[in-house]
Amino acid sequence: MELGLIGLGKMGFNLARNLLLNQHRVTVYDVDPEPGAELAKLGAVPAASIGQLAANLPSPRTIWIMVPAGKIVDEVIDSLLPDLEQGDIVIDGGNSHYKDSVVRADRLRERGIRFFDVGTSGGMEGAANGGCFMIGGDREAFKFIEPLFQAIAVDRGYLYAGANGSGHYLKMVHNGIEYGMMQSIAEGFELLSKSQYEFNYEDVARVWSNGSVIRGWLMELAEQAFSKDPKLSGIKGKMMSSGEGKWTVQTALDLEVGTPVIALSLLMRYRSLEEDTFHGKVVAALRNEFGGHSVVRNS
Amino acid sequence: MELGLIGLGKMGFNLARNLLLNQHRVTVYDVDPEPGAELAKLGAVPAASIGQLAANLPSPRTIWIMVPAGKIVDEVIDSLLPDLEQGDIVIDGGNSHYKDSVVRADRLRERGIRFFDVGTSGGMEGAANGGCFMIGGDREAFKFIEPLFQAIAVDRGYLYAGANGSGHYLKMVHNGIEYGMMQSIAEGFELLSKSQYEFNYEDVARVWSNGSVIRGWLMELAEQAFSKDPKLSGIKGKMMSSGEGKWTVQTALDLEVGTPVIALSLLMRYRSLEEDTFHGKVVAALRNEFGGHSVVRNS
Amino acid sequence: MELGLIGLGKMGFNLARNLLLNQHRVTVYDVDPEPGAELAKLGAVPAASIGQLAANLPSPRTIWIMVPAGKIVDEVIDSLLPDLEQGDIVIDGGNSHYKDSVVRADRLRERGIRFFDVGTSGGMEGAANGGCFMIGGDREAFKFIEPLFQAIAVDRGYLYAGANGSGHYLKMVHNGIEYGMMQSIAEGFELLSKSQYEFNYEDVARVWSNGSVIRGWLMELAEQAFSKDPKLSGIKGKMMSSGEGKWTVQTALDLEVGTPVIALSLLMRYRSLEEDTFHGKVVAALRNEFGGHSVVRNS
Amino acid sequence: MELGLIGLGKMGFNLARNLLLNQHRVTVYDVDPEPGAELAKLGAVPAASIGQLAANLPSPRTIWIMVPAGKIVDEVIDSLLPDLEQGDIVIDGGNSHYKDSVVRADRLRERGIRFFDVGTSGGMEGAANGGCFMIGGDREAFKFIEPLFQAIAVDRGYLYAGANGSGHYLKMVHNGIEYGMMQSIAEGFELLSKSQYEFNYEDVARVWSNGSVIRGWLMELAEQAFSKDPKLSGIKGKMMSSGEGKWTVQTALDLEVGTPVIALSLLMRYRSLEEDTFHGKVVAALRNEFGGHSVVRNS
Repeated sequence: MELGLIGLGKMGFNLARNLLLNQHRVTVYDVDPEPGAELAKLGAVPAASIGQLAANLPSPRTIWIMVPAGKIVDEVIDSLLPDLEQGDIVIDGGNSHYKDSVVRADRLRERGIRFFDVGTSGGMEGAANGGCFMIGGDREAFKFIEPLFQAIAVDRGYLYAGANGSGHYLKMVHNGIEYGMMQSIAEGFELLSKSQYEFNYEDVARVWSNGSVIRGWLMELAEQAFSKDPKLSGIKGKMMSSGEGKWTVQTALDLEVGTPVIALSLLMRYRSLEEDTFHGKVVAALRNEFGGHSVVRNS
Repeated sequence: MELGLIGLGKMGFNLARNLLLNQHRVTVYDVDPEPGAELAKLGAVPAASIGQLAANLPSPRTIWIMVPAGKIVDEVIDSLLPDLEQGDIVIDGGNSHYKDSVVRADRLRERGIRFFDVGTSGGMEGAANGGCFMIGGDREAFKFIEPLFQAIAVDRGYLYAGANGSGHYLKMVHNGIEYGMMQSIAEGFELLSKSQYEFNYEDVARVWSNGSVIRGWLMELAEQAFSKDPKLSGIKGKMMSSGEGKWTVQTALDLEVGTPVIALSLLMRYRSLEEDTFHGKVVAALRNEFGGHSVVRNS
Repeated sequence: MELGLIGLGKMGFNLARNLLLNQHRVTVYDVDPEPGAELAKLGAVPAASIGQLAANLPSPRTIWIMVPAGKIVDEVIDSLLPDLEQGDIVIDGGNSHYKDSVVRADRLRERGIRFFDVGTSGGMEGAANGGCFMIGGDREAFKFIEPLFQAIAVDRGYLYAGANGSGHYLKMVHNGIEYGMMQSIAEGFELLSKSQYEFNYEDVARVWSNGSVIRGWLMELAEQAFSKDPKLSGIKGKMMSSGEGKWTVQTALDLEVGTPVIALSLLMRYRSLEEDTFHGKVVAALRNEFGGHSVVRNS
Repeated sequence: MELGLIGLGKMGFNLARNLLLNQHRVTVYDVDPEPGAELAKLGAVPAASIGQLAANLPSPRTIWIMVPAGKIVDEVIDSLLPDLEQGDIVIDGGNSHYKDSVVRADRLRERGIRFFDVGTSGGMEGAANGGCFMIGGDREAFKFIEPLFQAIAVDRGYLYAGANGSGHYLKMVHNGIEYGMMQSIAEGFELLSKSQYEFNYEDVARVWSNGSVIRGWLMELAEQAFSKDPKLSGIKGKMMSSGEGKWTVQTALDLEVGTPVIALSLLMRYRSLEEDTFHGKVVAALRNEFGGHSVVRNS
């Protein structure tokens, strides 16, 4: 297939590389010209602008957008619109909120442009060597772009999930599950670290990666992480988050569904960003008031 | 009534004072002679030993033990036993585990000694001015000691709860509830502290103490604490715990009952004692492995 | 003072009654004429329309709106606007979202009308006999309406909290705390119900209401509830919620603050509304797959 | 190698089969003679008693016990002891509590018998085709039995973890992680089931098993479960538990470590076993008391 790819960050760059290595023709664009120049060595056509990218593609165009979620997606779509024609296909492969994807699909449908929201999982490695793709959009139009996913996904690693929004909904929930699984694994290692035994965490992660019930990619990554820093003594336990976990919990609230473990995994991330907490002070102060229990004073 | 009181720490001292002010005759003993000397000014008879305390009491003796939970209770009982006679009454007013109280009651029953497990709430203020007493033991024998509780409890602030162990069981659960209520209140103030508004916490605690649904003693104590240190800037958010909350959650596990909020209140206390966590490091390392997300390095 | 009161539901009716008994002159309006007729017996002036209510008030008008949160508040304000003049005061005493209150205040400020968002706590009893009022709005204008709160609040049961939105923010957080406290208390009674002892819950709630650390209005209400139905055998454990708890957790997510206990209290409410859960089925099915553990089949 | 295997339930039978297919000589015993007869077809020697099993083995004996955790393990060891000699090796491959394993090891060590606590994961499939083994015991003696694990584990699927107890400790924590991961996955599917989209759960589990971050054996099992019953409509959401999850949380309490997600996963299992809850009734009754909110009455 022939397609345009806008956004050559970590994920976009690796995806382009993957597509090129699989014999697709790719016109690429990024505000930073460097990754495009790099990809040109693999056969990509770097465009100097979004307009030039659109002009360089045969009709109907297939354009994959891989930029951070939020306003930037709309700005890219706004820049593209003047050059798009009825029948063109726009794919948002980033981590957009599924409700935004529904709105974007409606807006583009009015102009006869087909929109797909594609949740992408598998990390940088997945983008580079074959990942997992969850796809929402028009079922008929999907047939046209399916070869693309046959090339870049691992075996059976793509799914046409349903109407617009369903792809990003699946990705959001995937990330919610990921939060819960990571916190579960992490709590397990915490229990090892506090035990009377002297476990070698890399060895443990390896044995758990082989034949156990909890084997999976996250455990393999734990093995990898411990192989580099056996006790993770070089890093702090600050658990950042980039939004999809919060969206999952917000969606659970919208739907009034109890997802206690995913919710708590998110809240523990927020907790980890604070050195000390105000709620802790309040509890300490209350204990002091009623029981005369001592408090730890700031020095 | 006439009774002996062993253990003159914060709680025992205030209880003795309360009893003396209510015209009871109290023989007191503590390893430290000082509080006994202090209480002598109010009319207490300080004993030089546990044996002397027993000797000083008319038969049947009523002896109230107010020492820290655990082995010390058994040591005091062991010291008392040679001097006790059938019909004597031993009261454990400390924070003992209810299962220990059942064992102690059985052991003393064999010798014809009646044992009461009495959970005491209300803090130092309660011990001094009238608290809340939850009482487990023999129903008939309770009538004999009831005047004691009529004197030291606030109006309707005592309850014969049932067989041995029930008093300390109630106290344990009381403390579990207390953990949950304190964490709830504390999270509320955390939400105030992070808001766009400049709340005066003392004022808020006061208005919530007057007429609101969440009014109660803990909120009044919050007001008191904020009146001394408006933003609690002098203390750290280390939430210590002295055992009953853990017992509550352990009992919930024994009974296979879901008590998520009490359990979590306890776990957040443990969390507060750590500057950084190993589980946080594991999550941060995993995010770095699959997504190249940056980690915070130790400097 | 003289004021208008729009909305005579459970809360509005009791508030009007309270104001009338405290010698305020009140013009009342509700779509249902019956409560207005009832209040007329106590001296209220029932208005046949919102316009008539406004016409009946001296300038500057003080109008208290007590209707369900959401669109109805805006509809009432829309109906009022043609009859309002610069300097008039509008009070929203309902459970509005604090962000809505900020928007409404801005909109009314443009016309020279002062808006106050007032969170009201204390239940029907509080509205009738003196409750707790948390007030956001202009500090200068507050002086004008302060006598109103002096009359209807319990002693020190009102607080000028700060700029617009702060009143409803405090009420929202108050309700979040309430969720956590109620769940804590309820888990405690759950532990009593599963224990080896035969506790009388009404007695327990009473003793905990007298002198204990966890005493407060909620515990008194528990005593009251158990006095009517000693084991609550007549009702189901469906824990409804009316929105403020959800708002609290949503706000915690917005602010990226960990409020695990309040969040979990809300999620347990959602859980209680389901007879069976899909997540339970998934876990049961997984256990069956890996371990051959038996599942409970639908008959 | 040559070894004895006591206990031919689901796990023991499959393990014996695995060993026999890997050319080990296995003497087997179970109170039920049937599985032994079945294994005899594959070359096992069925013993009529534990004594006969011991007699049939060359010195030093290696005996693997695969029976349910608890007293049965001690009973089997008691039955074995008269026939064991210094230098013999006893392996407990069941789900014993790590503290019990420490006690058993000490007891056997006094007689010169080496004890290994071996946590086994991978379910029936793992026992049959290669699983994951976590091994605690004497490091030197381990060399003697290592060939056994080379045969029955998947590649790198065994680990000498450390001193006695460490094997079962690792297995316990493994299961705690498993609880958290299963609950996370299950909550994700709950969110799919409540969404506006019509997801095919089997398809979703399959795409998440291919290339995603959350891929692993549990997700593959989910795919398998949905392939048999697409909406799990045939089963109830009763989440049983067999003990290790509870031990994990109890250990977390012992160590005073916060493991909120694992704890909550366990508590949600307990919650799932109840149709209705007492705590739910208490919350509903309290709401009714203060706000007049309606309750759902039992019909």
